[in-house]
Amino acid sequence: MQWGYAPFLYFVAVLGLEAAMQKECRIIEALQNKLTYRQRLQYMKHYFPINYTVNVQFEEVLKAANITRLRDQNVSELSLRYLWLSVNSQVLLKIWAVLLERHPSWEYTQDLCHLFEQLAEEYENYNQGNVDANVQGVVEQVLTGDAGSSQKAVPPKALLDNCVKVMWLLYSESCK
Amino acid sequence: MQWGYAPFLYFVAVLGLEAAMQKECRIIEALQNKLTYRQRLQYMKHYFPINYTVNVQFEEVLKAANITRLRDQNVSELSLRYLWLSVNSQVLLKIWAVLLERHPSWEYTQDLCHLFEQLAEEYENYNQGNVDANVQGVVEQVLTGDAGSSQKAVPPKALLDNCVKVMWLLYSESCK
Repeated sequence: MQWGYAPFLYFVAVLGLEAAMQKECRIIEALQNKLTYRQRLQYMKHYFPINYTVNVQFEEVLKAANITRLRDQNVSELSLRYLWLSVNSQVLLKIWAVLLERHPSWEYTQDLCHLFEQLAEEYENYNQGNVDANVQGVVEQVLTGDAGSSQKAVPPKALLDNCVKVMWLLYSESCK
Repeated sequence: MQWGYAPFLYFVAVLGLEAAMQKECRIIEALQNKLTYRQRLQYMKHYFPINYTVNVQFEEVLKAANITRLRDQNVSELSLRYLWLSVNSQVLLKIWAVLLERHPSWEYTQDLCHLFEQLAEEYENYNQGNVDANVQGVVEQVLTGDAGSSQKAVPPKALLDNCVKVMWLLYSESCK
């Protein structure tokens, strides 16, 4: 490669990343619109039996405090977003798996699953290979459903509350 | 009392019982209309999470086979109806208790509870004191939630399926 091309390629790469971020932000906006308090209350609390819980892995309970701790350990924002995206994709699939197609929360949960799928595609296209090794380990454990991981019974609304709080922490600055 | 009144009082009593049976049949008809297969499927299966169960006492799982066995032991039809009514009133209250007011099965379950209340009132007015002692014992255990009774986890639809099958056994002849 001739050195004369380098600034041009850098410029193209930056443009590509910016376009990717814009697309990511559009998906985040769609998620925000679907994850309002009113909708979480309706679809994840009112439409479930009282005290109903979903079994998730310990690592799938990803709270704002976990993000703060990981930031203190200098884990990159990219890695944190990948963690949040991977964990919540799994969490939503687990909630979806307990619903029959005619359950009034089925379509809502399906829509959320699809938005997370779109986000995962965006991620795959632009950010592969830049993930912190520890985060990658946790994500693999979550994805493979490692039998060694302890389980937790958590109400579906509490899982989506965590999802929203962490989303706000990770995207409120970059997707204003 | 003069003996001359006796046939007249008997006649009045028979008329009263017939009127009561007609009222009972009207409530049974309303229950039948609310407990169709389609509605049980929708409100008690589709609108609940997959594999969801309600904890009931062993005696609250009242199946057609139990009725056949009790009939073989010459338990009166009146006692069997009282047993069915008491058991299913409790079962419905237990299902209702796991639902928030905005759950899509809440109103349906409430309506069924009210119909069973009406049936209990009818029963109280006309049939008190004629119940088989063994049946009375079981009903008291069910009503007091006797801690000694073993518990069973049963899907809500299975509980209402039992309710409907036994209703048919007990009323299909007398409420044609």
